[in-house]
Amino acid sequence: MIKTLTGKIDFAESLRGQSATFILSMSNTKTANIEGITQAGIPGMLHLTPTLDAEFLCTGEVRSLENIATTPKGVPTPALMSRAVHLLHPFRTIELLNLGLDVTPKVDYFTYHDRGLSPSDSIATGANIDALAVFQKGLEFGQTYTPKSDYVILGESVPSGTTTALATALALGYACEDKFSSSFKNSPKNIKKEVVESALRNIDPTDDLFAILSKVSDNMLIFNAGFILGANDKEYSIVLAGGTQMACVLLVVNRILELMEREIDATKIALCTTKWVAKDPNSDIQGLLEMLNFPINSYYTDFDFSLTEHPPLKLYDEGEAKEGVGAGGTLMYGLLNGLSKEAITRKVESFLG
Amino acid sequence: MIKTLTGKIDFAESLRGQSATFILSMSNTKTANIEGITQAGIPGMLHLTPTLDAEFLCTGEVRSLENIATTPKGVPTPALMSRAVHLLHPFRTIELLNLGLDVTPKVDYFTYHDRGLSPSDSIATGANIDALAVFQKGLEFGQTYTPKSDYVILGESVPSGTTTALATALALGYACEDKFSSSFKNSPKNIKKEVVESALRNIDPTDDLFAILSKVSDNMLIFNAGFILGANDKEYSIVLAGGTQMACVLLVVNRILELMEREIDATKIALCTTKWVAKDPNSDIQGLLEMLNFPINSYYTDFDFSLTEHPPLKLYDEGEAKEGVGAGGTLMYGLLNGLSKEAITRKVESFLG
Repeated sequence: MIKTLTGKIDFAESLRGQSATFILSMSNTKTANIEGITQAGIPGMLHLTPTLDAEFLCTGEVRSLENIATTPKGVPTPALMSRAVHLLHPFRTIELLNLGLDVTPKVDYFTYHDRGLSPSDSIATGANIDALAVFQKGLEFGQTYTPKSDYVILGESVPSGTTTALATALALGYACEDKFSSSFKNSPKNIKKEVVESALRNIDPTDDLFAILSKVSDNMLIFNAGFILGANDKEYSIVLAGGTQMACVLLVVNRILELMEREIDATKIALCTTKWVAKDPNSDIQGLLEMLNFPINSYYTDFDFSLTEHPPLKLYDEGEAKEGVGAGGTLMYGLLNGLSKEAITRKVESFLG
Repeated sequence: MIKTLTGKIDFAESLRGQSATFILSMSNTKTANIEGITQAGIPGMLHLTPTLDAEFLCTGEVRSLENIATTPKGVPTPALMSRAVHLLHPFRTIELLNLGLDVTPKVDYFTYHDRGLSPSDSIATGANIDALAVFQKGLEFGQTYTPKSDYVILGESVPSGTTTALATALALGYACEDKFSSSFKNSPKNIKKEVVESALRNIDPTDDLFAILSKVSDNMLIFNAGFILGANDKEYSIVLAGGTQMACVLLVVNRILELMEREIDATKIALCTTKWVAKDPNSDIQGLLEMLNFPINSYYTDFDFSLTEHPPLKLYDEGEAKEGVGAGGTLMYGLLNGLSKEAITRKVESFLG
């Protein structure tokens, strides 16, 4: 079942039977190196998470490390869900979008977009991004890209990405202190809070929008804001497959539109996240989306791991990990194409051996 | 299982693995306001039936009334079957074809064809249709329409449509008094007979084909006859998804061809109905199809509700409702794509809560 967060179910229903390209946008920010900031990966090797996610999503194998990324508590990556859906009802294609990776995924044959971006620095000391250039690259990508499918599902893998998203939204003036999600069940609010406060202290009163983004954001947020705006007069729809980070992409879009004194036709954009984000008592994605000046259709998938006995998967139902690698949007795609909760669960279990 | 009524199974078999657009053609005729003429809907709100069918088919929700259309006996709309198939193995797209509705379906994002037709009057006093104009609109639609799929499944929702179909076929000189189906198990032959006789009395000996259709027919029958003729040199096939009303569309096509002294290549047209129509002792769809001057492939789906215990669904097996909203053709599409009778039954049950 697909549930509506904001807007109406019609957009999602109109995607039944439509073909989809899954684009995984990936970037590294050195913010992830701050101890305890995220559990999206293996301590000391967090920078590998997007690389491993991409390898597993595309090939079913992890190549840049011996094992698939799990958190210290043993929560496996949400890439398991996206991969399960792809095996049961394949996407038209999977494409990789390198927005600044430390390590290139070892994957042949898949369309690989590389715009020459470098990993960004820690926002605690200044991300050191040329935000205008990154935005323009995103804009250009949106203007020139045409999928071989009816619509695009845009996912992300950015370790510590909820921290950079929170800093970004606060820096852009949104009152959203308690609205951002975390890969932790018990969000490490103190560490996160300290990092975000350090980031905000770097902002100068004279900084314009792009100067602010250059200091406190990450490449994924900025590039995808450009992508969405660049693609806005194209035929295809875009489903932002993610949680509060993807909501932050829209908050960035919103501020850019205000700056440009322009409006967007948001009828071909939607967001879909997981039930774990939608029902998270420690964040408020609906509240974030309601801060936009334009109406947006958003959904969550009524999928959880109640049908499994596997302890690592049960951790999702307890509130760990929650979202990532497009899980919400890829689950929607699966459900729209007749996959049952049970079939997806069994396929995810099969990866755990 | 798909069973052959006329022709050979080959046409149906050639559709395995092909993508299909489901077009729901809808119209109102005031004939439905005659008390006891149909049970396709809620008494006093029969005009809403196609609107509610479209809403439920597309979105899973009924929006123009609190509850989904059921007959006074509690027989739920056959839209349940079309929706079940769409959830289990989606059509490429669903498109709505408004051929004169009292109330527009509240559905966004779905392709909606509106040719500016108004609901027609009761045939008891003269339907008051500009049949030539409606036919030409259908012809033009067929000539210009191109589906995003390999073939089209054309369904209908027209309350009291079997009465207008019977009147139409009789007025066009087909000896078919006892060949038309009814949404009732025990067809209200007297009321229906009286209405049809009133309709036929309005015909003047000097009336030509289109003058006759203007008095005794409905927009769906006339428009779709044009659609079929207009699309006849197109690449795609059309499956008429329905019972005796869709057979009547072909009877209209047949008379028009006689009038124009033309022939049709009917190898890209077929009809598929439900088992309940095919096995109905009170009507004879095969007999109707054998009146055509051209050979036609026609089928029925070997689907019934023997696997359910739900009393409202069991009424279908007792002979109520029988067909509509493309049920026969959509069930064929489902069966051709690997869906089991059990899977479809379970999905239909899920709508009843």
